[in-house]
Parts: sequence; C-alpha cells; structure tokens
Amino acid sequence: MSRDRSSPEPNRDGSSAFERLSDATAAAGADAFVHVGDRFDDDLRYLSRFAGPDRDYAFVYADGRATLCAPRLFADQAEREFPGEVVPTRESSASSAAERALEELENRLTSPLEDARVLALPSMPAGATRTIADAVDEVTLEPIDLGRARKTSAERDRHAFVQRAAQRGMARAEAVLAAATVETAENDRRDALRWRGDPLTTERLRREVNATLARAGVRDAANTVIGAGATCADLHFTGEDRIDSGETVLLDLSPRGPRGYYADLTRTYVVGDVGEWERRAYEAVREAQDAAFDALRSGSGTRAADVHEAATGRLAEYGFETGDVDVGMYHGTGHGVGISLHEAPSLSSEEPLEAGHVVTVEPGVYDPDRGGVRLEDLVVVTADGYENLTAYPRTIEPDPERGEMVSDQSE
Amino acid sequence: MSRDRSSPEPNRDGSSAFERLSDATAAAGADAFVHVGDRFDDDLRYLSRFAGPDRDYAFVYADGRATLCAPRLFADQAEREFPGEVVPTRESSASSAAERALEELENRLTSPLEDARVLALPSMPAGATRTIADAVDEVTLEPIDLGRARKTSAERDRHAFVQRAAQRGMARAEAVLAAATVETAENDRRDALRWRGDPLTTERLRREVNATLARAGVRDAANTVIGAGATCADLHFTGEDRIDSGETVLLDLSPRGPRGYYADLTRTYVVGDVGEWERRAYEAVREAQDAAFDALRSGSGTRAADVHEAATGRLAEYGFETGDVDVGMYHGTGHGVGISLHEAPSLSSEEPLEAGHVVTVEPGVYDPDRGGVRLEDLVVVTADGYENLTAYPRTIEPDPERGEMVSDQSE
Repeated sequence: MSRDRSSPEPNRDGSSAFERLSDATAAAGADAFVHVGDRFDDDLRYLSRFAGPDRDYAFVYADGRATLCAPRLFADQAEREFPGEVVPTRESSASSAAERALEELENRLTSPLEDARVLALPSMPAGATRTIADAVDEVTLEPIDLGRARKTSAERDRHAFVQRAAQRGMARAEAVLAAATVETAENDRRDALRWRGDPLTTERLRREVNATLARAGVRDAANTVIGAGATCADLHFTGEDRIDSGETVLLDLSPRGPRGYYADLTRTYVVGDVGEWERRAYEAVREAQDAAFDALRSGSGTRAADVHEAATGRLAEYGFETGDVDVGMYHGTGHGVGISLHEAPSLSSEEPLEAGHVVTVEPGVYDPDRGGVRLEDLVVVTADGYENLTAYPRTIEPDPERGEMVSDQSE
Repeated sequence: MSRDRSSPEPNRDGSSAFERLSDATAAAGADAFVHVGDRFDDDLRYLSRFAGPDRDYAFVYADGRATLCAPRLFADQAEREFPGEVVPTRESSASSAAERALEELENRLTSPLEDARVLALPSMPAGATRTIADAVDEVTLEPIDLGRARKTSAERDRHAFVQRAAQRGMARAEAVLAAATVETAENDRRDALRWRGDPLTTERLRREVNATLARAGVRDAANTVIGAGATCADLHFTGEDRIDSGETVLLDLSPRGPRGYYADLTRTYVVGDVGEWERRAYEAVREAQDAAFDALRSGSGTRAADVHEAATGRLAEYGFETGDVDVGMYHGTGHGVGISLHEAPSLSSEEPLEAGHVVTVEPGVYDPDRGGVRLEDLVVVTADGYENLTAYPRTIEPDPERGEMVSDQSE
C-alpha cells in the first residue's frame, strides 16, 4: 500500500514545507517532528495535502522522510493526495493515532524511542501529546513557520478560481435583489421586499447564493454571511431576517475551493431609495478601500499597518471613528487568506508585507441603529505592487444585468 | 455585554451537559472545567451551541456557571447562541484564549489560582493546556461523557430536517442520471454518459447535488462523495471521473444542517443495462440492510454488533466476504451521527443500543475491478424498535419522476 513519492509542492522560495520541518527539527535539537490532528487542522492539511477524515490521524517526519498514518478506510484517498509514504492504520481515536505515530517513530529512529526528542506544534491535542511524551525523552512544543503566508503561483491560481466562484455567487445575489419587488407596509417604518411571491429574507438570499457557489464547484463552508439593516453590524450574522427596502444588505462570501483555499468577497447593496447615511457610508468605505489600494501600490516591503491606516485615515475624513468603537469601523482592514480563512499576515501588523501574501482589503462602517457597509476584495502582494484577484464592480444599487449574465453561466 | 441566561438545552435524560460537567469535575476532584478550541471542535459546539470563529476561544465552567470567552468581533453571535455568560475578548490565538480562561478562573475561584485543579478534555490543544498547567496546581485530562449519543426529540428533528434535504439532493442526482444519454464508444469497453451536451462526470453530478442541498438550506460540508465504477470502492472519492453506462454510481450525501447536525444517505444507481454482478450485489446489500433493520426491531437494549452481524450474515449467504478483505464489505455497518458526522455508538460495539441513539445502517459490497454498491439510511433507536428518518426508495435504476418531482420543489 505504501510507495515512494516525489517531494511535496514547493514553497514560494523553492524550499518545501518538509525542508522547513527539517530545519526546525534540527534547530530544536529534536530527532523528529510529529503531528496529530483531523481534517480541520489546516497545518496538517498544508503539510499533507490530505483532506482527511473527521477523526485524528498522525503525521511523522524523521530522517528526511514524511509518513502519513491514515485510517485504513481513507488509505486510497491518502495515496491520491499525500506526497510522502502512506501507512494505513486501523480506524483511530486521538490516542491511537499517537500510538501509531510512536510505532512509526520507533521504526524510523536508530536510537531507542525513550531517548527520542520530538518537536510538535502547540495545536496538537493534549491527550496525543501526553501519549507521546510518556514514551519519549522530551516533546518540545513550538510554532513552526511552514511558509504558508507567501503563496506560490499555483496557490494564487487556486485563490483566483474560488474568488471567481464567489463573484458568481455575488452576481446571483444582485439578480435576486434587483428582481425583488417592494411591498408597501401599513404600520412598518420600511417596506419589505418580496421575491418570487414570498417575503425575501437573508436566509432565502443565502440559499440562492450558496446554490450558485455549489454549481461553480466550491463549498460555502458555512461562511455565507448576509445581514440586513441592523444585522449588518453583527459581523457574523447567519439568521433569518426580513429584508426591507432602503436598508443595507451586506453579503460576505468566503467559500472554500476543492483544494482547500478560500475566497473572500464582500459587497453591500440597497434596494429602493438610498438614504443619506447609507450613501455617505458607501462613499466613505469605497474611498477608504481605494486609499488602502494606493498604500499597497508600493508592494513588497510596505509596512502592513500602513494599509490599515490609509483606510482609517480616509474614513476619519468622512467623520467615521475607528478602533474600539460602537459606531464606525471596529475591525481591522484585512487579514491573510490561504488554506485557512484567517491566517498571517494581518494588515494591523508592524511587519512588512512580502510578495506572495494574499490578503483581504475590507474597510467597513457600521451603525447598529442603521446598518452597515463593507467592501472587500482579495489581493496578492507582488514585488512592486499588488494584483487584485477580484474583478467585481462596487455599486450600491444591485445591477440586474450583471446578475442575469452570471446567472446564465451558472445554470 | 454579558447577561444571565437560562440553562442550556437539556439532554435526553433531563440533565444538561453542564450538569454532566459539574459531576465530572466533582468526580475528578477538580475545581473547574476549562476547554479551548475553535469552531471545528464538536464538543465545544455541543457545550456552547456557539458556531464560533476559526480561531481558538475558551469555555470555563466553575461554581455552577458557564462562561464563553468569545473574540470581541464574535460577541454578538455568541450572545445569540450561547446559553451562559459571554465575556468578549480581544482577537485571540490559542495561547491568549488560554490566558483569558485563566483570568476568568481567577475571578471565579475563591482560592488562589496556583492551588486550582482543572479538568480538561484530551482534545484541548497542547499549547493551551501547557499555559493553563503552568498557572494552576494540576490539569487532569479526561474524556467526559457529555450525553451526546442519546438525542432528544429536538435533536431528532434537526437530523430529520437535514436528512430530508439530503433526499432532495439524491432525487436531483436521479433526475440527472435518468436524463443522461449514452454516447456510443468506439474503442472503450463501456459507453460514456452525456448530459446537457457534455460528458457527465462525478464532479458535474456533485455540483448539481450540492446546489440542491444549498437550496434546501443545508451545507454540503465537503462531504458529497460520488464514485463511478472502480472509484465506488474508494470510499471517499471526490475526484472527477467520467460516468459510464452499465457501471455503479454511488452517492453518499452527508450534509450538515444550520444547527450543526448531520444527515447521512447513500444510494447506488446504474444507468443502462444492469450487469449480473451489479444486480446481485444490489440485491445482497438491500437484503443485508433489511436484515440489519430486523435486528433493530428489538430497539433499546439490542447489542449493537448484532445489527452488524445480521447484515454481514446475509451478505455471506450471497457469497460476499466481510472484514479485512479487498472484495466484499470491508467497513462496519453503521456509526452514530450527531453534531459530528461520526460519533458514538458504533454498530460494531458489544454495548447495547439505547433509545435516542441516531445511527447509520449502511452495508455495502465492493470489487475494485467492477464497482461498489452501498445503501445507507439514518435511523433513531427507540425504546421498542427504531424510527427510520429516511423515506427514500431503493432502486438500482434512477427514477426520472422522483427526480422531476423533487427538482420542482427545490428550484
């Protein structure tokens, strides 16, 4: 069942994640690196390229070779996905995955297991760590820079694929919003939207968007956030709200592609008459995003926080407060995206940006009594600027033609 | 931002998961229970009902009160979902979540932090565990039975909802398969299927199924497995295969509902002429599933492995081997399903089934040279039998009318 493979996908600098493991293991004075986790562990996904089961499995790196101890029923999948050696194991709990890792270590090391020094990530489950620590001389827990932040061109292409799928989902939302009709209210402050004969809710809109994402070959990953009016200020709203004419409708789409890489795209719309606050908030946020893009034009070497400060500075000119506030912008301007939806670098960091960083640019302003506006694109930092992986217009009014065009493609 | 709430959703026996924590903490001679994890940690989801961010957050239970230390930007969501007290924290890494848990512990306990004894789950990250262990007297790692296996009627209803959505996805697959046309091959052994002008692949079929799941309000959760011919024997195949006339097409749909509970439904079809092996395999598996259902008719108290043995016994009568084999049935007959796709109990267990257990019943036979057949329903064990949450016919030929009927509903 096991066979030799070529080394894994190289990192941007030409090294591989395995070489980084090798270096980190040597630097820690350790004999081996061990990790135990499940399909939701993104470091393990990055190291193994194995999408894995929802139960724990083990990864062992020693003596220049990587081994994946994959549950027997997933062995075929592991052989397809993992670039190292696959050892099929019986279906396993966390502790038995650790025991299997110990067997593999014992086979691999020339000195006795009880003398072994093992390097591991702090994210390894405590139970598995204890099982290993009880059998070896020492387990050192240490974060390791696997090189995830700087994307290769292959990784860039995976982000671009899933970002295009997100754009199709957004266009579907525009089509639905543009086709909605306004139901005149009798006692309410605002008029409710109707679509295809029933009230249009955030949940109905989310289902349409998610169906379009699925047809484009990506997974909604439970990440499709849609707020309407006040719930736009609740950054992770996934409830069922009536959508009214005149209020902001904020859509934040972060689907995951089949190879594990995420998109991130946010737009905000208003159906019907656009009020003064909404128009001004939209303009401020669009200007803030442009200011952030301007700051990114110097590319690699730019202090990350300069991008955030460019955005917040522009918002301040419009009178919007930022930082730890209840009204205004109370989040950062962006974060890294990769095999995790949130990863390094943060645009609030003092560190310089590097070529290959994939980051969101997403200023927003919120007033819990009125609504919220956020605009988000996904970009790659380059040596002398940036490439925007997003090609999607920013308009506060939903465009029925954009929607129809993309809807035709996706059906 | 914090407020008092009623106690969480009760377990089936009328106790709550918090009472079980209280008992386990007392039994371990501990002063408090602490857990750190992210949205993918199903014990944390069950305890908190908080769908959470993809970064670590902390849960503290001490002195009869539960606190969720949720990242500030998720505080609104935590307030909506968590039945205890919410303490907003700054955006956190695993170690800072542990530090926040320590602050909360210090506020809560009457004795000094350094004398505290803490109970924790083995799944807590090793780094967070170390941070806590360094500050307190002792951390005891121990699995705790939170009562997840025995579902309440509210949990049963969530499973039933998502299982109905899975059925709509399956009907969509039938509609597509029934509408496919056969392209006569020139050199190939089999004839390829075409649909809407292009070759029908497992990926195109998966996109149609996933779009239907999305429209039904559930998430594919990256769990839609479709194999064709030989890849049916590769239990977790998610690649892009051409689908040919005469070969088995196996669809295993395990979407997750909005409240976190999973469905699990498998059917197998053949388009065109059904060969001798395929027809016999289908009949054997259907009979094996019926034998498993018969074994479940005694309900609560039935030895779980009796269900598995009823299925494998019937397969043996058809000449199919079971166990650690390459051809035949090489997996168990079923597993528990809940807030995790795979959880207790296993139908290979010697333990008795209990009322409220939600389990799959999924015999299958495979021949890597020919294909595979599996049929899977989701059932709830009751005091005197079982309730099948699945109402979906078992036919080897895809039914165009079933497909069209459900397709109309979902569009």
